[in-house]
Amino acid sequence: MYNRTEIASLLKNQPVGEKVTVMGWVRAFRNNQFIALHDGSDSGTLQIVVDPEKIDSTITRRIGFHACIMVTGSFQHSQGAGQQFEIHADVVEILGDNDLEKYPLQPKKQTMEFLRQKAHFRMRTQTFSAVFKIRHAVAFAVHKFYNDRGFYYLHAPIITGSDAEGAGEMFRVTMLSPDKPPLNEEGKVDFTKDFFGKATNLTVSGQLQGEIAALALGKIYTFGPTFRAENSNTPRHLAEFWMIEPEMAFYDIIDNMDLAEAFCKYLISYVLEHNAIDLAFLDQRLKEEEKNLPTDKRRELGLLEQLEFVVNNDFVRITYDEAVSILMQSKPYKKGQFEFPVEWGRDLQAEHERYLVEKEFKKPVIVRNYPKDIKAFYMRLNDDDKTVAAMDVLFPGIGEVIGGSQREERESVLLDRMEQSGIHPDEMDWYLDLRRFGGAPHSGFGLGFERMVQFITGMGNIRDVIPFPRTPGNAEF
Amino acid sequence: MYNRTEIASLLKNQPVGEKVTVMGWVRAFRNNQFIALHDGSDSGTLQIVVDPEKIDSTITRRIGFHACIMVTGSFQHSQGAGQQFEIHADVVEILGDNDLEKYPLQPKKQTMEFLRQKAHFRMRTQTFSAVFKIRHAVAFAVHKFYNDRGFYYLHAPIITGSDAEGAGEMFRVTMLSPDKPPLNEEGKVDFTKDFFGKATNLTVSGQLQGEIAALALGKIYTFGPTFRAENSNTPRHLAEFWMIEPEMAFYDIIDNMDLAEAFCKYLISYVLEHNAIDLAFLDQRLKEEEKNLPTDKRRELGLLEQLEFVVNNDFVRITYDEAVSILMQSKPYKKGQFEFPVEWGRDLQAEHERYLVEKEFKKPVIVRNYPKDIKAFYMRLNDDDKTVAAMDVLFPGIGEVIGGSQREERESVLLDRMEQSGIHPDEMDWYLDLRRFGGAPHSGFGLGFERMVQFITGMGNIRDVIPFPRTPGNAEF
Repeated sequence: MYNRTEIASLLKNQPVGEKVTVMGWVRAFRNNQFIALHDGSDSGTLQIVVDPEKIDSTITRRIGFHACIMVTGSFQHSQGAGQQFEIHADVVEILGDNDLEKYPLQPKKQTMEFLRQKAHFRMRTQTFSAVFKIRHAVAFAVHKFYNDRGFYYLHAPIITGSDAEGAGEMFRVTMLSPDKPPLNEEGKVDFTKDFFGKATNLTVSGQLQGEIAALALGKIYTFGPTFRAENSNTPRHLAEFWMIEPEMAFYDIIDNMDLAEAFCKYLISYVLEHNAIDLAFLDQRLKEEEKNLPTDKRRELGLLEQLEFVVNNDFVRITYDEAVSILMQSKPYKKGQFEFPVEWGRDLQAEHERYLVEKEFKKPVIVRNYPKDIKAFYMRLNDDDKTVAAMDVLFPGIGEVIGGSQREERESVLLDRMEQSGIHPDEMDWYLDLRRFGGAPHSGFGLGFERMVQFITGMGNIRDVIPFPRTPGNAEF
Repeated sequence: MYNRTEIASLLKNQPVGEKVTVMGWVRAFRNNQFIALHDGSDSGTLQIVVDPEKIDSTITRRIGFHACIMVTGSFQHSQGAGQQFEIHADVVEILGDNDLEKYPLQPKKQTMEFLRQKAHFRMRTQTFSAVFKIRHAVAFAVHKFYNDRGFYYLHAPIITGSDAEGAGEMFRVTMLSPDKPPLNEEGKVDFTKDFFGKATNLTVSGQLQGEIAALALGKIYTFGPTFRAENSNTPRHLAEFWMIEPEMAFYDIIDNMDLAEAFCKYLISYVLEHNAIDLAFLDQRLKEEEKNLPTDKRRELGLLEQLEFVVNNDFVRITYDEAVSILMQSKPYKKGQFEFPVEWGRDLQAEHERYLVEKEFKKPVIVRNYPKDIKAFYMRLNDDDKTVAAMDVLFPGIGEVIGGSQREERESVLLDRMEQSGIHPDEMDWYLDLRRFGGAPHSGFGLGFERMVQFITGMGNIRDVIPFPRTPGNAEF
């Protein structure tokens, strides 16, 4: 058992005058005298003062950027500016040398692209350390939000044998020999011989299984990995990402919107409260990055201001009808500046969503009641017979963070919608069963976890907010 | 927006005399007068009193087992035994009929096997409702335990391109055409043409990636799905299950054991504190089940007693050497009753582990310092050059719940161990990098989440503690 104390614990308990031992990594070593040491327990560093009369130069020489050391010494108030406490080292021991001649990282600014290629080291940088600590905080806030409100966490299946989720973009999961798979009578690969007795894929959503649970337990949420085999090499796409999908019996579309808004605000408030140091660092980082941009390309609000802004304002709620008519009266529409057409019955594109959020309302916007033909079959048909009770939550900068709906609970209407969508009822007999036997009105939505972490951290590329990004051609580690 | 109140909220705020609306499902309807209603918000039910003079018989007739209804009425103290409050219904509306002639579930005891085939309904039963509410509580307790202690939640990758994890039992993830895959010059399937540019599999463990994060952030934990393509149709195996894998810099094997013990106790204490109704129900269920067993097959302790027992006792800690010598002096060994041999250098089998836990110590046991040849290459070699700093936590009834180790942080020793295990250093260059550059002593372990939920709920088959079990031949929903 190591007799060491974590830096966070020292800063909290402040055992001034006591002899303590810490272990950690060197962030900086100034003047052969001052070590900035961090051990992960606190987002800042602890200053270690090295007296050349006490610590041999054979040791001092090995104290460098990202070397791992153990220090025993006296915990003291610091006389220097910039920190309240420091340790006066009696003994320094090297736990792990770091040869800077060979080490891929260097104590200077390095591009995100470079760091992405060194994913086993990038979390050691201050930027990624801040990002992944915030990612943790958001994840914990998700669980706390739902737990406090009486929701049950559901682990939806990752491997799914369900056909109805949009097979084209799904990854296949198989144990058949790739070179000599068993064939059926038609000479095709015989998936009845596969591990699960049929073709299976990686899930794209836990919603349908979430409905099963909500109609038994009342309120549930999923929080798990989902997959999309889309060949998109963009800063917005991942092949593997995490989703949160709450599903609630006895919630209509308005209850659903209320929950979505409260949820977004809670996550952001939680990080503002718990990750002040990390956010300040990222805020500063963005400001420096933007110095190089022309004035009109800079954000109107800084990172912190934008987060406060979302927390402190009601989201604007409009219908799709209203959205279309606002867009048709907008300057960019009249000047022909939108790339995509605006017309009732067409889906809103990113440029339209951004106009609504960033120009028209300057607030997060919830659009509801979309035309039925551009939305999924399971969304509840409104009385106008033209729209469904769908809702999208739109954020500045990143666009849609949440998509949801009230679900169609009427078996006959659902059957019609399935037929129109070309889904055979037999494929989803169990889903129809949920409507046939003790069905209830219910609603739910999905939040792309990485999108939210991107919004909160201000990171421009979604690959920089997930520890090990999976994208076309890339599955390192 | 529905104007309804959740049952849990009514029981908490007790608005006696007020008019309230509730929505929920009927668990029972006695004497055409008393409805036991539940809506998931509370593990119990709320009594609804139906007055035939107020509620028409065309409605009353449709109030049956698992029908979904809305009730408006007056919240009152109950005069009857068995409940404190009830609602005197003014209006009952049917939200979802339930035709018992066609409904697969019936208001009587049904076998676990039958319910497993009706997985979209089984959560509606009291047993599974209790199990999945406890599963939620355990999951939340996992996050709370680590968050409170300054650990960061890490999402380890699900799709992995890493070769070194034991490929035989891994599921392949692919987007290549099953019928006409591209071939390389040797006529084999060319995985360089696959989505990720190489062959990829579903992860069997997040440990190695966890080490990357721990050596940057200090203390991390994973909690995600893991996969094993083992063709085992037993009550103990799942192809898809959830694992928790904490990994800590600056922890040795003793720190690791301390954390593992505190973690187990915390999870169980949390459920004892938060799920009293669910546990009492499952305790009773087990007792009734055991009535049919001969006395010597019954548990010595009831479910609740066993949980209290684990929480209130120190785990016994012994070395592998001690374990072997205890077993060699045991009655079953001397009488030749063990199926598998006991000999230094062989792994302990389930029967040996159970003997240690259930007969010798009657407490959870942690065995450490196993022979290096039966353990993984990354476990830290002890000074005796024969054993490694591995540890297994053994529980009554289910055997090993936790396996962990201090990791080998010395590059040269690790290289030797890799060579002995037939792993080429090039395959794991990044893993070696973690030792080459600012490496730190570190440790970690893995807990099989479903095993722990099984222990806490007393469910005999692991398929009954995961919402949608994946096993050979079975990937429904």
